Amino acid sequence: MVQPELKRRRDKIRWLMDQQNIDAALIACNVNLLYTYGEIISGYLYLPLHAPARIFVKRPNHIKGEFVYSIRKPEQIIEILQEEGLPLPQKLMLEGDELSYTEYTRLAHMFPEAEIVNGTPIIRQARSIKTSLEVEMFRRSGIAHTKAYQQIPSVYRPGMTDRELSIEIERLMRLEGGLGIFRVFGQSMEIFMGSVLAGDNAAYPSPFDFALGGEGDPTIPVGANGTLLKEGYSVMVDMGGNFNGYMGDMSRVFSIGKLSDEAYAAHQVCLDIQNEVINLAKPGAVCEDLYNVAIEMVKKSGFDDRFMGIHQQARFIGHGIGLEINEMPVIAPRMKQELEPGMVFALEPKIVIPGVGPVGIENSWAVTVDGIEKLTNCEEEIIELG
Amino acid sequence: MVQPELKRRRDKIRWLMDQQNIDAALIACNVNLLYTYGEIISGYLYLPLHAPARIFVKRPNHIKGEFVYSIRKPEQIIEILQEEGLPLPQKLMLEGDELSYTEYTRLAHMFPEAEIVNGTPIIRQARSIKTSLEVEMFRRSGIAHTKAYQQIPSVYRPGMTDRELSIEIERLMRLEGGLGIFRVFGQSMEIFMGSVLAGDNAAYPSPFDFALGGEGDPTIPVGANGTLLKEGYSVMVDMGGNFNGYMGDMSRVFSIGKLSDEAYAAHQVCLDIQNEVINLAKPGAVCEDLYNVAIEMVKKSGFDDRFMGIHQQARFIGHGIGLEINEMPVIAPRMKQELEPGMVFALEPKIVIPGVGPVGIENSWAVTVDGIEKLTNCEEEIIELG
Repeated sequence: MVQPELKRRRDKIRWLMDQQNIDAALIACNVNLLYTYGEIISGYLYLPLHAPARIFVKRPNHIKGEFVYSIRKPEQIIEILQEEGLPLPQKLMLEGDELSYTEYTRLAHMFPEAEIVNGTPIIRQARSIKTSLEVEMFRRSGIAHTKAYQQIPSVYRPGMTDRELSIEIERLMRLEGGLGIFRVFGQSMEIFMGSVLAGDNAAYPSPFDFALGGEGDPTIPVGANGTLLKEGYSVMVDMGGNFNGYMGDMSRVFSIGKLSDEAYAAHQVCLDIQNEVINLAKPGAVCEDLYNVAIEMVKKSGFDDRFMGIHQQARFIGHGIGLEINEMPVIAPRMKQELEPGMVFALEPKIVIPGVGPVGIENSWAVTVDGIEKLTNCEEEIIELG
Repeated sequence: MVQPELKRRRDKIRWLMDQQNIDAALIACNVNLLYTYGEIISGYLYLPLHAPARIFVKRPNHIKGEFVYSIRKPEQIIEILQEEGLPLPQKLMLEGDELSYTEYTRLAHMFPEAEIVNGTPIIRQARSIKTSLEVEMFRRSGIAHTKAYQQIPSVYRPGMTDRELSIEIERLMRLEGGLGIFRVFGQSMEIFMGSVLAGDNAAYPSPFDFALGGEGDPTIPVGANGTLLKEGYSVMVDMGGNFNGYMGDMSRVFSIGKLSDEAYAAHQVCLDIQNEVINLAKPGAVCEDLYNVAIEMVKKSGFDDRFMGIHQQARFIGHGIGLEINEMPVIAPRMKQELEPGMVFALEPKIVIPGVGPVGIENSWAVTVDGIEKLTNCEEEIIELG
């Protein structure tokens, strides 16, 4: 990746570090290395406040360059910093929400004189405001994502289960360039490529904090559960759009034959909520206000007891996206955060109709200087399969 | 899952806890919850040495039962334990290699009177000796894995890239019941469903510590890189076989047309190494001895400079498998650990031939009382495609 882009990202982190008198960061986690170094290594990026970043590589063994040092173990970093005449930090940040306790304490012990603080919130804050290049990655991802979704009707066959349809959609995503891997923040969050939810499975509560659940498999309890796709069922496809490292997010609803009138009405409520929230979503808009607008609309519609699930309802309608599917900001109650240019988020008002399945919409959006840009342009009405 | 099975697993952990005077464990990570509770929850399993386990559930909200308590936050656990008349632990173990620093310290602070220790090594040790039921899960997984691999020739089309072939094999794995999700121990280890390596890409060093690397994509640097499958290339398929939570491991080699004589010779060396190591692999065999036998054989063959990679060579020939792909034991230098009945491991001697690609073999094996059982029964010769 080009150096000015990486420097821009590092400087965003530095700016936030400076606010808290943090004079260095040691970065070891894959997504944060992708962000600050442009690729994944087994190693560390050391980011001083007032000096160029240093890269310490354990693997692979072919990476060379200015400020790149080959190491066998992290303890060698100290020695190398001293040889290079860099002062050791007074206040160092490590990725406390992401590194294991063992790895964090090992790295912390290398700096016995320093105060050690959790740097994850700072890095996530920096990552929440995307650069132009990052927004462009999302645009490209949105195009590929749309191409895959447009082919969904062509792979449906009557008598399929949700799982069989999911497998064909996964293949479409991969053939359009999808990398398959689904990155999510939080050690307990897991999902394969995304979810395909049909019928009452959409209301099945999951341990994971995604917008909807699904029974899934006992060992990965989320998403498709083998539901036969039958007449009158809706099917929501919500696959992670990771085509270039950036996790675009888009949900679309399909129907097996016709759905109940109530389902179409609920779908329209979700589209209306999307349109209203997006009308208000510009720099300065407060996340909880956007959430409350959605809640008021859904209450008026009478679908509030089925909004974002039934037995277990998600308490958000949108979330930042980036190298991980769940970034800042979150559009949820009590979130005082304001939208800023460069933020990219998914907005996903969804309603589950008993006996029918999930309806609603999800698109990815980039906040611009004076408004908002849609990143996932694809038919939003319910599409009948078969 | 049946209670006697879960009790057996918990008692294995308790037995190891007792050796170190640990009187309770608090378990929060998905694979360890799967192991001790039989399913994934957002919550905690509290395992006292001398009392039944307690389950504390945040999500999903439908889990009920004896010793199951609904909580909003982990701090409520203390109060509930006290209400139930359970003494607070003197020495508590937490999953130090798996929990984030933030989560670990939050849980540790709930027990200000207790000594807190890292329980990950104990749980991994317990998990390394599988129960009969777990071995049976591997047997079933091996059968499904074989069924998928046997169909590989049917999805090959001339002019494909490694990536396109990988996509079709991923689909076959999923259609045979594969769950897709690939669980691996270690915060920096990532891969999608496995790898398909062809030609010189097999020698490309990766940041990840898998047996072979591959260039992959800049944002997930391992596996297929778009190599066109052309005449004279070998293709190694190494997909994780997760059909029921247990990660079976199997690699097979295919050829586009005929390979060089050297490639077939190298493949035979790997088969011979497998056979020799497996002849010696029984309870009491020492892991490093098995490794050394392989190294001696490959040195005699003259392929040692291309064994387990070229520019970057993996320093192991096998690894335990279970709920994660990389469990104990590791068959590697300086590993004094002895094989024990119930251990399940993958053995994967592999050689990379420049200009041709990877050859070799990988199977999953269970150590029995007096020998070893093969779990992945599938043709081992190089199969010509097209």
